[in-house]
Formats: sequence, C-alpha cells, structure tokens
Amino acid sequence: MARVVVEVMPKAEILDPQGQAIVGALGRLGFDGVGEVRQGKRFELEVDDSVDDVALERIAAELLANTVIETYSVRRVADAPAS
Amino acid sequence: MARVVVEVMPKAEILDPQGQAIVGALGRLGFDGVGEVRQGKRFELEVDDSVDDVALERIAAELLANTVIETYSVRRVADAPAS
Repeated sequence: MARVVVEVMPKAEILDPQGQAIVGALGRLGFDGVGEVRQGKRFELEVDDSVDDVALERIAAELLANTVIETYSVRRVADAPAS
Repeated sequence: MARVVVEVMPKAEILDPQGQAIVGALGRLGFDGVGEVRQGKRFELEVDDSVDDVALERIAAELLANTVIETYSVRRVADAPAS
C-alpha cells in the first residue's frame, strides 16, 4: 500500500467565491492582513502497489478534478497523514 | 506578502462519506486497487508580513477547520501555487 495525495485548486483565472467569502469573514472577525484566499480540495488515497502513476494521473484528471476550471497535482508521500 | 497553505482533513475516527463515494465511483469506472479515499480541504492564503504564526493558527482553528471533526496543518510556503 502507498499513500497518495492529490491536491485540486481552482485555476488562477477562475473566480473563487468560497475564497472571497473567507476573506470577508476574516475581516469581520478582526483578522487583518489577509489579501486573498483560494479554496481547493485535498484527497488522501491508499492505493495498492499495482496502481501506477499513469492510473493515478487518470484518477485525478477524470474523477477528482474538473480540469476545465481546476488544476491538480499528484504525489506519493510517506505514510504520514496531515496532523 | 507570504503564501500560506492550510490543509484540513477529517479526523481519522470520523466517517468520510465523500471519500467513500469516491471509492465507489472508482470501482465503477474500472480503477481497481484504491482501498481508501479521504477528502479534505486545502486553502491558499496571501498574507501580509504582519500576520504572525499565532494569528495563522487562530484563522485555521476558528474559521477554516471545524476542530471537533477535522485536523489542520498550517505552513508557510515559497510563492509556488499547486500546478
């Protein structure tokens, strides 16, 4: 088994209303100095060793990301989840 | 300005129906060998240099993550968005 992280973010030229809402909320909560926020997704996959990089690319591009409006990155990581 | 990445993931003991739905979809699409998927969020923030690590921790814990069911990590990164 291997652990794979796929990160999906809205493309730079795509409006991100979720991120804009967070910027607004930060201001109302008194947190100053945050100029921009963009919100994306993070997936952690546990895959068999039979799953190669080509398959991971297809999984990311065809299922996890909408490549019209999002970019993605795929990387294999050591077995250490976000803490 | 500095770029900060905040990653938010469901805690290990919390059921993740979105991730389970992805596992099911992968099977139907013919991708075998993926045992578990967990879906979280990824935020990219552009912050002024006046925003210190204590403020970033508060932003993550009070606004971006629901710490009852989610864990989060905060890190400053070089100016390189996910590609």
